[in-house]
Amino acid sequence: MTSTPASVSGRPLTAKGLATRARIVASASDLMLKLGVDRTTIDDIQRAATVTTSQLYHYFVDKNDLIMAVIDYQTDAVLDVHRTALESVDDFDGLVAWRDTIVEVLTRQHCVGGCPLGSLASDLAEVNPRARAALERSFGAWESLLRQGLATMHARGILPPDVDLDRAALALLAAVQGGLLLSQTRRDTVALESAIDFAIDSLRLRAAA
Amino acid sequence: MTSTPASVSGRPLTAKGLATRARIVASASDLMLKLGVDRTTIDDIQRAATVTTSQLYHYFVDKNDLIMAVIDYQTDAVLDVHRTALESVDDFDGLVAWRDTIVEVLTRQHCVGGCPLGSLASDLAEVNPRARAALERSFGAWESLLRQGLATMHARGILPPDVDLDRAALALLAAVQGGLLLSQTRRDTVALESAIDFAIDSLRLRAAA
Repeated sequence: MTSTPASVSGRPLTAKGLATRARIVASASDLMLKLGVDRTTIDDIQRAATVTTSQLYHYFVDKNDLIMAVIDYQTDAVLDVHRTALESVDDFDGLVAWRDTIVEVLTRQHCVGGCPLGSLASDLAEVNPRARAALERSFGAWESLLRQGLATMHARGILPPDVDLDRAALALLAAVQGGLLLSQTRRDTVALESAIDFAIDSLRLRAAA
Repeated sequence: MTSTPASVSGRPLTAKGLATRARIVASASDLMLKLGVDRTTIDDIQRAATVTTSQLYHYFVDKNDLIMAVIDYQTDAVLDVHRTALESVDDFDGLVAWRDTIVEVLTRQHCVGGCPLGSLASDLAEVNPRARAALERSFGAWESLLRQGLATMHARGILPPDVDLDRAALALLAAVQGGLLLSQTRRDTVALESAIDFAIDSLRLRAAA
C-alpha cells in the first residue's frame, strides 16, 4: 500500500511530478475527511492543491482514481501512527501507551474528523465496491498490527493461552472505531477512552483469571 | 423524538397528509442509508415516494429539514429494536439475547448498510452541527437503554458494585458501532460478534472476579 506510484501511463514521474501528485492527494484527503467524498468536488481539490485541471487529470483518470489514492494515503497515515505505537508492545504498559497515543491524537483534533479510514468506509462501502475492498484490506493490516502486539504478550505468558488473538485484535479495532465515531459525535474523548479501556481491562481480567 | 409532527405551519395534518409525509421520510431514509446524504437528491426522493415537488415542499422547508426528519425516523427505528431487546435484560442470558438480535438483523441485511445512526453521524457530524447535536441525543438515548439493562443486573447483584455503569454502557455501544462498521466493510458478521462478545465477556469476568 503506497500513495506514490513511480509512473503515470508507463512514464516515470520526475521529482516535481511526484510532489505535485502528492500535493493533490493530500488536499483531496483533507477535504474528503472534512466534507465527505461526494461533497468534495474536483474544483475544490484543484483550488486547495493549486493545480490546473490538466495537471490533475495528468495524474488521475477520474475522481474514482483519486479516491483510491486517498484511501492509500490515509491507510499509510493511520498505519504509520499505529505501527509506531504497536510494534514495541510486549506488556500491558505498552498497550496503554498505544491507547494514550490514540486519545492524544483525538484530543489534538478536538474530537473533529473521526477516523479517516472509518469515515471513508462508512461513506463508500455501499456505493464503491473497489473502495470497500481496499478499505477491508486497510482494516486487515491494522488488525494485524494489533494482533502482533497481542501475540508478543501471549508468547511472553502475559496473556493466557486460551485468549483468541484474532478475535481480541478485531474487538480492539472495533472499540477504536466505535469509540472514535461516538467521540466525534459527542465532541468529547470519554467514549473513545471508555471503549478502549474496557477492552484492555477485559484482557487484564483474563490475564488475572 | 418522533418523525411525525401533528401539524405543518400550524395547521394539523389530515390522515392522508400524515401518510404522505411518512412516505417521504421513509423513502429519504432508505436512500440516504444506501447512497449517503449528499448523493441523495430531492428528485430521487420524489420518485421513490411518488410525490410532486410541491407536495414535498409542503411538508419540508428544505433538504436540511428533511435530514432532521430522517434522523428522527432512524432513531425511532433503531431504538425500537433495542428497547424491545433491552427492557427485559436482567441477567447475562438477556444480554446475550440482545446480542443475538443485533447479529440477526445484520445477517438479514447481508452485512449491507451499517448502522443507520452511525452512518448518519459519520456523514453529517462535520458538515451539519444541528444534525450532529440530534445524533448525539440519539446515541445518548440508546446508551440509556443499555445502562438500564446493566443497572438491573447491578441491582440484582449479577454485576459487582464496582462496575461503572456509564462507562460500561458507552463501551457496549462503541462495540456495537465499531463492530457494525467493520462488518459492513468486511461483509461478514465476525467483527460485530467479536466486538460485542468481547465486551460481554469482560462483564462476565468482572462478575466472576
